[in-house]
This record gives sequence, structure tokens and C-alpha cells, in this order.
Amino acid sequence: MAVIVQKYGGSSVADAEAIKRVAKRITEAKRAGDDVVVVVSAMGDTTDELIDLANQVSPRPPEREMDILLTAGERISMSLLAMAIANLGFKAQSFTGQQAGVITDDSHGRARIVAVKADRIHQALADGNVAIVAGFQGVNASNDVTTLGRGGSDTTAVAMAAAIGADVCEIYTDVDGVFTADPRIVPTAKKISRISYEEMLDMAASGAKVLNLRCVEYGRRHGVDIHVRSSFSAHNGTLVTDRPLPEGEGQMMEHPLIAGVAHDRTEAKVTVVGVPDVPGTAARIFEVVAATGVNIDMIVQNVSAAQTGLTDISFTLPADDGQKAITALTDHEQEIGYASLQYDDQIGKLSLIGAGMKSHPGVSARLFGALRDAGINIEMISTSEIRVSVITRADQLDDAVRAVHTAFDLDSTEGEAVVYGGTGR
Amino acid sequence: MAVIVQKYGGSSVADAEAIKRVAKRITEAKRAGDDVVVVVSAMGDTTDELIDLANQVSPRPPEREMDILLTAGERISMSLLAMAIANLGFKAQSFTGQQAGVITDDSHGRARIVAVKADRIHQALADGNVAIVAGFQGVNASNDVTTLGRGGSDTTAVAMAAAIGADVCEIYTDVDGVFTADPRIVPTAKKISRISYEEMLDMAASGAKVLNLRCVEYGRRHGVDIHVRSSFSAHNGTLVTDRPLPEGEGQMMEHPLIAGVAHDRTEAKVTVVGVPDVPGTAARIFEVVAATGVNIDMIVQNVSAAQTGLTDISFTLPADDGQKAITALTDHEQEIGYASLQYDDQIGKLSLIGAGMKSHPGVSARLFGALRDAGINIEMISTSEIRVSVITRADQLDDAVRAVHTAFDLDSTEGEAVVYGGTGR
Repeated sequence: MAVIVQKYGGSSVADAEAIKRVAKRITEAKRAGDDVVVVVSAMGDTTDELIDLANQVSPRPPEREMDILLTAGERISMSLLAMAIANLGFKAQSFTGQQAGVITDDSHGRARIVAVKADRIHQALADGNVAIVAGFQGVNASNDVTTLGRGGSDTTAVAMAAAIGADVCEIYTDVDGVFTADPRIVPTAKKISRISYEEMLDMAASGAKVLNLRCVEYGRRHGVDIHVRSSFSAHNGTLVTDRPLPEGEGQMMEHPLIAGVAHDRTEAKVTVVGVPDVPGTAARIFEVVAATGVNIDMIVQNVSAAQTGLTDISFTLPADDGQKAITALTDHEQEIGYASLQYDDQIGKLSLIGAGMKSHPGVSARLFGALRDAGINIEMISTSEIRVSVITRADQLDDAVRAVHTAFDLDSTEGEAVVYGGTGR
Repeated sequence: MAVIVQKYGGSSVADAEAIKRVAKRITEAKRAGDDVVVVVSAMGDTTDELIDLANQVSPRPPEREMDILLTAGERISMSLLAMAIANLGFKAQSFTGQQAGVITDDSHGRARIVAVKADRIHQALADGNVAIVAGFQGVNASNDVTTLGRGGSDTTAVAMAAAIGADVCEIYTDVDGVFTADPRIVPTAKKISRISYEEMLDMAASGAKVLNLRCVEYGRRHGVDIHVRSSFSAHNGTLVTDRPLPEGEGQMMEHPLIAGVAHDRTEAKVTVVGVPDVPGTAARIFEVVAATGVNIDMIVQNVSAAQTGLTDISFTLPADDGQKAITALTDHEQEIGYASLQYDDQIGKLSLIGAGMKSHPGVSARLFGALRDAGINIEMISTSEIRVSVITRADQLDDAVRAVHTAFDLDSTEGEAVVYGGTGR
């Protein structure tokens, strides 16, 4: 008998019929003898509809009230799911974040889980129930309702799995798992059957949408195996873990160099043109941007032109935050002392991820060669221990992804990819 | 400066525009210097829509889950209302039943409030907030969500007013107050400006829909003045109180004999025909019905026919429960030993209510005379200290109400009715 956490997203519980299908799937695990905790998101478009209502009554709704409003969504889906399971003859109880003991910090709209006091969940399981927990929500120390922000339900699921010592946290989604590249761009992409937290973190941070970054980070920190799988099939998906492969399973396989190729179309590039190439200028620019709460991704500083003593500094950031950064820089134009600002949202980012590259220094060269052969210009480069990212023109990104996928022998001939670059940390 | 509780029902917060109107009204009280606690119901048809969803996933949803589901409704309306108030430049915080300290017993779907621990509400007021509290909901001792059943938000409002020692509990509705009869039937009916709890209880129990019975009962027990008024006008409505009139205000007025005429079309009559007129038969009949949880209202036992030793027993009950009672009686036919059952839902009930009748024994006679003069047959009669009720044919009920209203000089010539029959209990 195993203890399993299953997480279902909004599209899996979009209407009454979908809820009944999910209920059936849950009871199959229960019938197999497993203890099941289910984490559920709000139904389909509920959250968007609630946000729309809020905007109708106030242009700037207070965050505390916004969180109370939005958490109504999971309250509806979780109780309906419990009803549907009960209707199949199984015991089920639903729990709000507060009832499930999900304690967060005070950051309304983007709260972080600080503790999970799962006494009631343990009790519900001991009493033979399927425990249904509202995703995305918790309470702070003052018993005020908080939400976890985008991807919050995945994080709830992994946190709940850690708290109750579950054997696995299954994240149900509308794709079969994590692939070596987005199959819509690279039809020959392979499903990754096993991947380390570190590589999955870099994949997620680099644009692979299947798993939320915070959820993987939480899983890594607490050693929770995360199984990303389709809610429409019974096939295994992708297991995110640092555990070694079981005896006899693929022990002889060579760990592949590369986990996958991720891409991201959501960034924009800001270039601050003609800044004095003296110590402190770059720092001042990034202080100004950081003060707006915008996250900067890649940074490039050109070599200074000797005759002028001026240089250009480029950085990328989420395009959604572009206006905020430009406004802040304009407000501080005098103080920073630049000539002009350039803004470009027609860029794409390609990232090659693989723990194997730590011991294979030729990876970057092979990547750049593949892009050159495909006629694709590289505008910015950044590297970490297990990742190389490049910025290209947005309209060349798909070609770039395909070229790199092929160059690193990731194209499928048969079977699935086992990526295991566990670092033991 | 006063402390005021205001309660707004679902129709007052049916959409974003309505919520903004209510927000404006609330801020007017706040601007006048009062501390305001608002109790709010779910928006418009939300509750019905949630019930519909539940029925789509399960024919018999578990009560615990039903309560969690339904309480999503107030969570939405209360947070939107807080946002709308904040948008007008006032501080506001919304609180779920759990956060507001509304502790109930375990009866899901019809829970009773056992305590209100209003610490957070006190704190919110002290911090200058309008406190918005979800009506209709609480938590039991196990921190499970409960609902209070029909009219529950009114009860929440009065309970909250008692807990914080409010000066008055204002129940906003779509009519101007409580009238001496339903103005849709008796156009000359007068608004009652002041009425005792005892009379209001009997009015509510006899079919006057404006105030919920439990809310009045709670108000009486805790001495909370309840002001029923229209959310569409600034006029005073009906004050339910046992406090004597202030010095100089109507002290010289004679307290009227009668508070008003209530009517009820929701009952049905069951007649158990041909039962042995021996001790214990009636008891057995009502035990059988009581075991189904059905509330019996009026009971009449005919005089026994001497030659047969058989009699008929009639009783009234909510028509919604008719089938349940008939089934129970049919199941126990042998044991009770009756000849047949008759069921009649074409009845109406008229009730005359007034504390003054305690000291005026002629009231019943005058009532019966008025109905006789109007050609209306009386089928059953029941009386209490301050109420006389009669059953008529349903299609004669309106005529009966008008005839009685006139016979007791309740028809308006001018002004409003002050009914003050406070009994001091």
C-alpha cells in the first residue's frame, strides 16, 4: 500500500462531467489499496471570472480581499469532487488550505508555504477517506487567507506530499509528461521518463511549462518524487527524482549528456545605450530596475569604445514587466546618465539543459556550431553549470530549437529518454 | 457614535453595480461616524447555481461537502463588497464565518450558533475598518464549515450585533418594513413602525416573510433591536424591540389591540379518517409523523361518532413535507388502525396577532364574525395567548385577510402603526 498525492488542474475539473471522470480515476487508486490525498485547482475559468468581477467593483482591489475572493474557486471544485467520490461509494472529505494546515507567510497573491500541519489530513486518511485539499491557498499566522500565485496548486501538492510522507506526488496534466523539447515545435521530441530535480528546475526556469519552478524546488528540498502524467491516459509520465534507478533498470545505460531543449518567448530585451563605462553604472541600472520588483534574466555589457569611454548594457526580463522597467529607467535618466533606451520584444530564448555538460566542456561550442549551420544569429549568451542559454530573433526560435535538438542526438528513433544526472545534493 | 450591524441579502448584492450601491450606503453610515459591521449573503442566484452543480455530480451530496460548497457564495460577495468599499476610500476587511468566530453546533445545513467569538471583528473596528462578515455560515468545534439554513444571514447579523454589543441590527430588504398585512393583498395595510419581539415572532411564524423566525428569537433572547428597512430608500422601517418608547414619543397613544394579519399558503392538511377514539391513538399518529422530522402545526380532533366509536383527526403541516407524512402513516396503517387518509393542499391559513388580545377576550369572536360576514368558512382553529389562526379554502384566503384587516380597524387612513405590546419577558 502506498500513500499517493494526486494533483488535478482546472482543465481536469472544468465541469461536472470532468469532475466525475477525475473521481473515477481517484477511486481506482483507492481501490488498488493506496491512501490518496487529492489537491485540486479551481474549475476551468472560475478564477478568471472572479478576477473579472473584482475588476468591475474596483480598479485596484486590495490583495487581502483578492485572495479571499479567488480561494472561493477551489472551495467549489474540492467539495464537488468529494461529492462525486462519495457518490461512487468511497469516503471523501474536502479541506480548505486553512483546514489542511497550509501555513504561509504574509505575501498576499504570492505567498510562500512556511509549514504544513497536516493533522486533519492524517486523521482523514486513517478514517478511510480520500482527502481532497484546495490547491493554491493557505492561511498566514493571523488566520488570513493567502494564495500562492501562479502554479500554486502544484506547490500545494508537493508540500502536502512532503508533510504526509507520500511515496509520490502525481501531477496530472493534459500532456504525457516532460519532453526533450516542446513536441509542437519538435515532432521527434521524446518523453523524458526520469529527470533530476536540478535539470527539471533549469528546464522549468527556461520555459518548459509543464511543471512550476517553485513546486520542483520544494520537491528537491524535501526529496519528494514528482510524477508528471496525463489525466487522459494510464501511461507513466515523467518522474522527477534524485533517487538512483532501481537495481537492474537501466543501470548500464550511459547517462545522456543533455536532458532537453527548452524555449521561451515571453522575454524582452532592454538596451541602455551610451552609459559611462565607470564602476557603479551597471549596479545603479540594476538597482533601479530591481526596486520595481522586476526579475532580470540575462545581462550583456559591450566592450567599451575606447575613444568615448561609453558602453551599452543589455538585459532581458519578462515582457510583461517591460513597461515598468522602462518607466523606472526613464525616471532615473539624469542620475544614470545614458544616451537612449532601446526596447525589443521580438526575441526568443533557447536553453540547452543537462547535468552531463558539467564534465563535457564542448557543449557550448557544439551548440553555437549547430546554430551557425542553421543560419541563426546569437544575440546574447548566458551559461550556468548545467545550462547554456542564447537569445535569437523570435521568428528564428523554432528553427533554432529543431537544429539544436538534432545536433545533440535527441530526436526520437524509438522509446523514451531516461535523463539521470542526479548530483547528490 | 453608534455601533451598527447592517445585513444585505442576495438581491442587494446581485451584481457588481448592486455591490457598488451597497458599498456607497455603508460608507454613508461610516462617514456619519458610526462603526459598521456588515453581514452579507451570496450574490443573487449563486446559491442556486451551486446547488445545481452539486446535483450534477451526485444525487445525494454529503451534507458536510454541501456546506463547504455553499459557503463559497458569501466568500465571493463579501470580498467584492470589501473591495468596493476600499475603492471609495474607506478601510474594509472581510471575514468568513470561521474568521468572525461564528461557532455552531454540528448540524450541517441547519446549524445553530452556539457562540460568537468576535475578537477579530472588534480589532477590525478598532483599526478603523468596516468589517464585512459572511452570513449564513460558521464552523463547528472541529473547524468544519457549517451553514445555518434558510434565513441564516439574518441570524448571523443579529448574533453578531449581540456579540459586539451593537446599538441596532439593520436588516436591509426589498420592502419598507413589516406591514399590518401583506400590501400585495391589502393595499391599505400600514407599515408597523415598532413591534415587540413576541408579536414579530408570531407574525414570522404565521407567514410574514420579511424576517426570519430564528433571527427574531435570537434578537429577543439577547435584547438586540432589529430594524427592518428598505435598501432602496432612507426611510425608517420597522423596529423590533421590547424597549419602551422614548419619553414623549407616543407615550399617550393607546397600544393597539392587534399588530397585524399574517397569512400562509404553504401548508397542507392531512385527515386520518376513522380512527378508534381510544387513548393513545392520537399520540401514535403524531409519533409516527414526528419520527420523519416533519413539524406539525394545527391539530383538530372531531367529536367521536357515538355509534361507531371512531373519529377523524386532522392536522396541518408544510406542504413540502406532505409526501413524507403520508408515506409514514401508510407504512403504519395496520398499527394505527385507520380507515383512510385524506390530503388537501388547497388550504390557506390566516393569523391575527396582537399582544393586546391577552386582555381583550372578544378578539376571536370578532374574527369569526368578520369571516362569517364575508362568507368564508373556517375549517380549523388554533389559538395562543397573542394569536388566533384559522384555516380557510386557499382561494378565499385573500378575501379573508382583507375582511379581517378591515374588521380590526387596521386599514390605513394616514401614518404608520406603532405596535408595542412588550410583555417584559
